[in-house]
Amino acid sequence: MATFIIANGAAAMGGPVTIFFTFWGLNVLRKPNGPAVAKGFLDKMFGMMMPKGARRLRLSKLNMGGVGTMLMKHVMRSKNVMDLPTLIKAAQDAGVRLIACAMSMDVMGIAKEELIDGVEVAGVANYLGTAETSSVNLFI
Amino acid sequence: MATFIIANGAAAMGGPVTIFFTFWGLNVLRKPNGPAVAKGFLDKMFGMMMPKGARRLRLSKLNMGGVGTMLMKHVMRSKNVMDLPTLIKAAQDAGVRLIACAMSMDVMGIAKEELIDGVEVAGVANYLGTAETSSVNLFI
Amino acid sequence: MATFIIANGAAAMGGPVTIFFTFWGLNVLRKPNGPAVAKGFLDKMFGMMMPKGARRLRLSKLNMGGVGTMLMKHVMRSKNVMDLPTLIKAAQDAGVRLIACAMSMDVMGIAKEELIDGVEVAGVANYLGTAETSSVNLFI
Repeated sequence: MATFIIANGAAAMGGPVTIFFTFWGLNVLRKPNGPAVAKGFLDKMFGMMMPKGARRLRLSKLNMGGVGTMLMKHVMRSKNVMDLPTLIKAAQDAGVRLIACAMSMDVMGIAKEELIDGVEVAGVANYLGTAETSSVNLFI
Repeated sequence: MATFIIANGAAAMGGPVTIFFTFWGLNVLRKPNGPAVAKGFLDKMFGMMMPKGARRLRLSKLNMGGVGTMLMKHVMRSKNVMDLPTLIKAAQDAGVRLIACAMSMDVMGIAKEELIDGVEVAGVANYLGTAETSSVNLFI
Repeated sequence: MATFIIANGAAAMGGPVTIFFTFWGLNVLRKPNGPAVAKGFLDKMFGMMMPKGARRLRLSKLNMGGVGTMLMKHVMRSKNVMDLPTLIKAAQDAGVRLIACAMSMDVMGIAKEELIDGVEVAGVANYLGTAETSSVNLFI
């Protein structure tokens, strides 16, 4: 959430914004009901163990078997703070580029079709090139 | 602790330093015995679940029911490393600006009076404005 | 791993790269079978509790008693992704400077001889000096 709040803030202030997603971060970009993709056994296991999409992620360090996340979502709704899926949609509408790390996708056995629409795929060199010319650059 | 050690180091080297606190980071700034503030039920629950102030935070990933944190504190004291409350005090004395994220305070139901003295409140635009003109900028 | 993948990528793109290791990060640099060093009781306890070197670190947030880490290592090997010890070796060969935080070593009771060869020891001022003049600077 911090990533998207900062990204959307920066986009609103007029700058070009890029988010580069690696390893567990890719789960944010998975479609909740993605297409069936032919996978090896290990890739399948990985896919099953990990949360599918922004709605399934733990929101709180005080998770307590789901209660913390539910509580946090309730509080955010009642205070008119966008939830994660809405933040992602707002980011895409504001022109924030979402880039999935190619090597992470390979290791975790995630195919491009399993990610939400509009996500690009690129490598670490692409990230470094963008980071070098940007004024604010965070690892979150 | 890493945040304040780096901030105090940078202040000692003569630069202006700002720390922006979001979500769980706000707990560092809570007064151990803050004033009673009228709150709704959920805000109260949140407040009770979270540690109040720097003295109550876990210090170690090897927490083991408090033993890790106690051990770490003992070792640091015996080696003359400042503990977190002392680091915060030193930071304030050195002119480091401590800014609490307004949206995080709203979501977590924390009022300004519950935070230690000298803390400012501002939004993400304020953070981004500061980050853009600073030479070192970390998400910790 | 993210640290070394980014560092090695940056080194391949021709820039000077420095990694500064603090607290738990130091465990990455410990020799698996380091020399016996005379230590006080607390330093010994700390040393025993912490993983010794890159091969012993948890690789996954889905650790599940070691299964997650084993699975991840297997997947990475089968997909020709370098493991952590290989990434460290590659970084050193590419001229990436590895710097251990002097204060962290002191607090955790780690001596220079316990770290892998080629590691430098320095303080936070050294880190800040390097960070200020670098174009990309991350806290990982």
